[in-house]
Amino acid sequence: MTYTNCWLTYPLLADEAGKGIAVSSDFSGPMANSALEELKEGFGRMLRREVSLVESGADIALKRNEAIHPEGYRIAAEGGQCVLEAGGAQGMLYGVFALLRQVQLAGIGFDRFCWKKEAAPSNPMRMLNHWDNMDGSIERGYSGKSFFFEDDEILVNQRIKDYARLTASVGINAVVINNVNVAKAASWLISHRYYGKLRQIQQILAAYGIDLYLSVNFAAPMELGNLNLCDPSDIAVQAWWKEKAKEIWENLPGFGGFLVKADSEGRPGPFTYGRTHADGANMLADAVAPFGGKIIWRCFVYNCRQDWRDTKIDRARAAYDNFMPLDGQFRENVILQIKNGPMDFQVREPVTPLFGGLKKTNMMIEFQIAQEYTGQQRHVCYLMSWFRLVLNQEMYVPGVPSTVADLVSGRSYGNHNCGMAAVANTGNDENWTGHDLAAANWYGFGRLAYDTSLNPEKIAGEWVRLTFGQDADVVRILTSILMDSWPAYECYTSPLGIGWMVNPSNHYGPNVDGYEYDRWGTYHRANHRGLGVERGEEGTGYCAQYNEPLRSLYANPQTCPEELLLFFHHMPYTHVLSSGKTIIQHIYDTHFQGAEMAEGFLRKLESIREKLPEDAYQRLHQRLTHQMEHSKDWRDIINTYFHRISGIDDEKGRKIYD
Amino acid sequence: MTYTNCWLTYPLLADEAGKGIAVSSDFSGPMANSALEELKEGFGRMLRREVSLVESGADIALKRNEAIHPEGYRIAAEGGQCVLEAGGAQGMLYGVFALLRQVQLAGIGFDRFCWKKEAAPSNPMRMLNHWDNMDGSIERGYSGKSFFFEDDEILVNQRIKDYARLTASVGINAVVINNVNVAKAASWLISHRYYGKLRQIQQILAAYGIDLYLSVNFAAPMELGNLNLCDPSDIAVQAWWKEKAKEIWENLPGFGGFLVKADSEGRPGPFTYGRTHADGANMLADAVAPFGGKIIWRCFVYNCRQDWRDTKIDRARAAYDNFMPLDGQFRENVILQIKNGPMDFQVREPVTPLFGGLKKTNMMIEFQIAQEYTGQQRHVCYLMSWFRLVLNQEMYVPGVPSTVADLVSGRSYGNHNCGMAAVANTGNDENWTGHDLAAANWYGFGRLAYDTSLNPEKIAGEWVRLTFGQDADVVRILTSILMDSWPAYECYTSPLGIGWMVNPSNHYGPNVDGYEYDRWGTYHRANHRGLGVERGEEGTGYCAQYNEPLRSLYANPQTCPEELLLFFHHMPYTHVLSSGKTIIQHIYDTHFQGAEMAEGFLRKLESIREKLPEDAYQRLHQRLTHQMEHSKDWRDIINTYFHRISGIDDEKGRKIYD
Repeated sequence: MTYTNCWLTYPLLADEAGKGIAVSSDFSGPMANSALEELKEGFGRMLRREVSLVESGADIALKRNEAIHPEGYRIAAEGGQCVLEAGGAQGMLYGVFALLRQVQLAGIGFDRFCWKKEAAPSNPMRMLNHWDNMDGSIERGYSGKSFFFEDDEILVNQRIKDYARLTASVGINAVVINNVNVAKAASWLISHRYYGKLRQIQQILAAYGIDLYLSVNFAAPMELGNLNLCDPSDIAVQAWWKEKAKEIWENLPGFGGFLVKADSEGRPGPFTYGRTHADGANMLADAVAPFGGKIIWRCFVYNCRQDWRDTKIDRARAAYDNFMPLDGQFRENVILQIKNGPMDFQVREPVTPLFGGLKKTNMMIEFQIAQEYTGQQRHVCYLMSWFRLVLNQEMYVPGVPSTVADLVSGRSYGNHNCGMAAVANTGNDENWTGHDLAAANWYGFGRLAYDTSLNPEKIAGEWVRLTFGQDADVVRILTSILMDSWPAYECYTSPLGIGWMVNPSNHYGPNVDGYEYDRWGTYHRANHRGLGVERGEEGTGYCAQYNEPLRSLYANPQTCPEELLLFFHHMPYTHVLSSGKTIIQHIYDTHFQGAEMAEGFLRKLESIREKLPEDAYQRLHQRLTHQMEHSKDWRDIINTYFHRISGIDDEKGRKIYD
Repeated sequence: MTYTNCWLTYPLLADEAGKGIAVSSDFSGPMANSALEELKEGFGRMLRREVSLVESGADIALKRNEAIHPEGYRIAAEGGQCVLEAGGAQGMLYGVFALLRQVQLAGIGFDRFCWKKEAAPSNPMRMLNHWDNMDGSIERGYSGKSFFFEDDEILVNQRIKDYARLTASVGINAVVINNVNVAKAASWLISHRYYGKLRQIQQILAAYGIDLYLSVNFAAPMELGNLNLCDPSDIAVQAWWKEKAKEIWENLPGFGGFLVKADSEGRPGPFTYGRTHADGANMLADAVAPFGGKIIWRCFVYNCRQDWRDTKIDRARAAYDNFMPLDGQFRENVILQIKNGPMDFQVREPVTPLFGGLKKTNMMIEFQIAQEYTGQQRHVCYLMSWFRLVLNQEMYVPGVPSTVADLVSGRSYGNHNCGMAAVANTGNDENWTGHDLAAANWYGFGRLAYDTSLNPEKIAGEWVRLTFGQDADVVRILTSILMDSWPAYECYTSPLGIGWMVNPSNHYGPNVDGYEYDRWGTYHRANHRGLGVERGEEGTGYCAQYNEPLRSLYANPQTCPEELLLFFHHMPYTHVLSSGKTIIQHIYDTHFQGAEMAEGFLRKLESIREKLPEDAYQRLHQRLTHQMEHSKDWRDIINTYFHRISGIDDEKGRKIYD
């Protein structure tokens, strides 16, 4: 199957054929080989210059400098000469990708290229979680089938290598290749049935500085080991995992560790035996510690059999209620992976209060670039603007820097096992991500995880230029579509943080009451007077999980940020927002506006048709056309629902169906 | 697999062992053999008397009387002697089943048995449509897997014979064994791949007077015949069907004919080629006519890609709009099969106006005893009370008797190809119908189709006594549960004819907005002031499809029957019904009442535990417990939805969740 190179296009910039580029290197080994290969590919295609390795007299010198972070680099390039210093092979590789990217962005020959840059990663761990199943399907996958698995076998081919190149080029250093819901054949990934192919995958990834992790089944001792329990306090269970860890690392030296979804949405876990999450995670942590392994333990634990009639239970409370009491009880090699928001990857949520709570526990934030609730890669929705807000959120922990970015990067408490993860959005579609513009989320997440200070618009513009070239109209228009896409999606779907008004199961398309009377804890509580979930003192008490002043700020409708007002409070439709509009008018206005924006995206695309490759244009046109139509379904269903229930007419007299 | 005998239990009534019963018969052939076998089985088990065939001096004389309808009989029994006259073998067989049934109901020895009865079928055709797929699944099946098919093969075994006995015992004379949605292997049923097994099935059925029909794929000439079209006006297509019909009847002499779902919900049909339903049906009719075959053509044709925003399109209009213009154009061996209501087997609908419209077309009514929308055989819902109302409905055709029963039985216009069909509710569950009480619908439908004058309560009581014995408490309680079950189900689900407030796809459980913004044409149009679909002159104009005075009666909210008020009109919640209650209060009251009734069913069952077989009791208890709980979900979700949207409180202050 053919596929695109996404942002590693290396277009011809200047024909400097005949002039070679001599490279010297302090580094050896697989990553050094990858770097040299990439330089050959990049400069060969962009400049028609042949890259060769020399001992001395280099045009590009790759130097080791122990003073630099092992995954950082320092570049100085001018007049056809470049010194790239790095603290280790990984930093050198990132530097090489950065150099090639910058040359491409500069769009000129190497002789005229002039650039200085110093970089070190913001986050120790920068991870992708693939929810790929071994039958080849992908849970919440919107880009075709898995390129890791097919018919319960592991695939090893050129695409895996190109995946590694793309992923490493933006600074990702760890991947989990299988779904967190581990069942059937996937339970056997940690067995001799698969070690051979896994070793091949691992070596391909390692040559690009990427550690391999696997999701494991907490009940593996029962499914694989013939034990009749998986109680973490049971000596036989502990021994089984110790033996298993030994076997894994013997077969996969340098293996990263396990990602675990336990006691969540029906998955097995320590609760069955009256043990805590700490008991469960630590048992695994002790087994993998001798080999330097890590346990990433997901905090997505909540009551998914809630009764909608019970207004006191609140799913938003679950992560904090479950994990806060365990702070300080986890081993050093355990990392809690906490979703950015307290619900589940909605287009807008507050930040999970657990980030501001845990002080003695390693944390990693979990984002989702698979657009499960944000248009499923049939709508464009560039998420870095949203992630930027999440990372910037101040959690007000006394005495330490405490934005979310500070907390998950380890800056607050000096953690090393921490960072950022994202549920991946890739598949075996020709363009990797279904929607051509969705690759910006893959690119952007890596860039942001490596440097949390980056501006989302800068990332977007950079990605557009790398992917579609430097034409000013193309850059301006596609960047503006990306930057407007998350606000537009929020406009025509979910007002003021309410979330969840989607079709159950597939999570696509409008259905205001889709989850309203269901067991998932996801309600809007709309009646003829108002809507929203009351989470203040009179409500579920969720606000109290935040540090002051957030606690009071959120608890009071007068001070609650308006974009989250309906997340925190049940409010009358007639409540007047700071814009001077009532909530009901805000609902109408944003839904009309959002659908107009979606139509605008299509028109903008059409204006640059001649400047885009025809196949990419056709794919984009088809998706943006669907988005335009679907945004009208959203607009009309949401507006009609709230018009019917409130009985309040649109002030502007636009068409709302009865 | 073991299974029950349902109403053919033949319990021991009186031990008359030693005294034989001598039977003489004017009949021979398979049906005569079946009748004798049944007499042996019935009297052997009920009375321990051996039945033997004699030439003269009989206790029971089975006599041919040409004055009697071929499927009718006349019985006179007294003092151990019985004369059973019939117009044909089929009538004789029905008479034998009736005699055995009556002896069982009388509960005494044959010597003391005294009974006179004369019977002839109300309807020429009395049919079951099985929606069984060849992979063994059953579309809308709630009783296990198919007993006709498994893994694309036809099953031939004792269960088929027992199915034929049960089915014939209540007067059914035709069955379609495969799903109307004909796909995959089922398209090949009319081919040499399956004729061998089909012939065996056909012979088993024929021995009980049951004709075999098959659903066919209108595109069969393309799928089986390598033609590139299935245009009914194409000579090659016509020739293909003629040749196919010849082949079928050569292999299956006495075969009944085809059931066809065309141009419906994505099935192929004549519309593709700009032809009418008459063109399509007549083409098939001409092919099968030389062999006495019939074409049953379903009228379930509607736009299933409707836009909810369009309030002028009305799915209820579809059958009339599509078929009324074709009246008189169909061949004599074509029968239009018309669903009882204009929508789709809801718990309450008006009668399809097409019954009162067509004058020169053969019609058969289609009921559904598979409880798709009436509790899926997890809730008890005895449907004969509902079918009784449908059959009694006067359609006001000038100059002819014109209740629905008159129209479909042929009494109005002298048709012979007409009658009643029902989508079957059977499967390979131990008790045949999932819910033990659901067998009353199988039994009842057959009884009612044979004699449309029967009283539903009489049928229910009869079935209870045949199935569970004669204990007075058992009979009283189970009969009352059956009789209250349809009203209860209507109470806690759908008020005043509105219908459709169910989960999409599986059609089970409450979901008020489940279909509201969907493409299926099934809406309630509830807003904060009222609910219902306006189908009068100011609305979709549907009312005009009825003859006067129904047209005016339905069109006027003041004269519209209240149980259908919201089917025909959009009404304010505050509209006062003849009960003195507002509509909103009626919604609350019926939902509380319905859930109480469901709980009552469980308590009633518990009161007769000792008098029921333990296995049947356990099955019933489990289902009635679920029904009780599920009826509360219905109550609370419907009440909350309408409380939220109307803002009107329950006058009685009962708990409605917010």
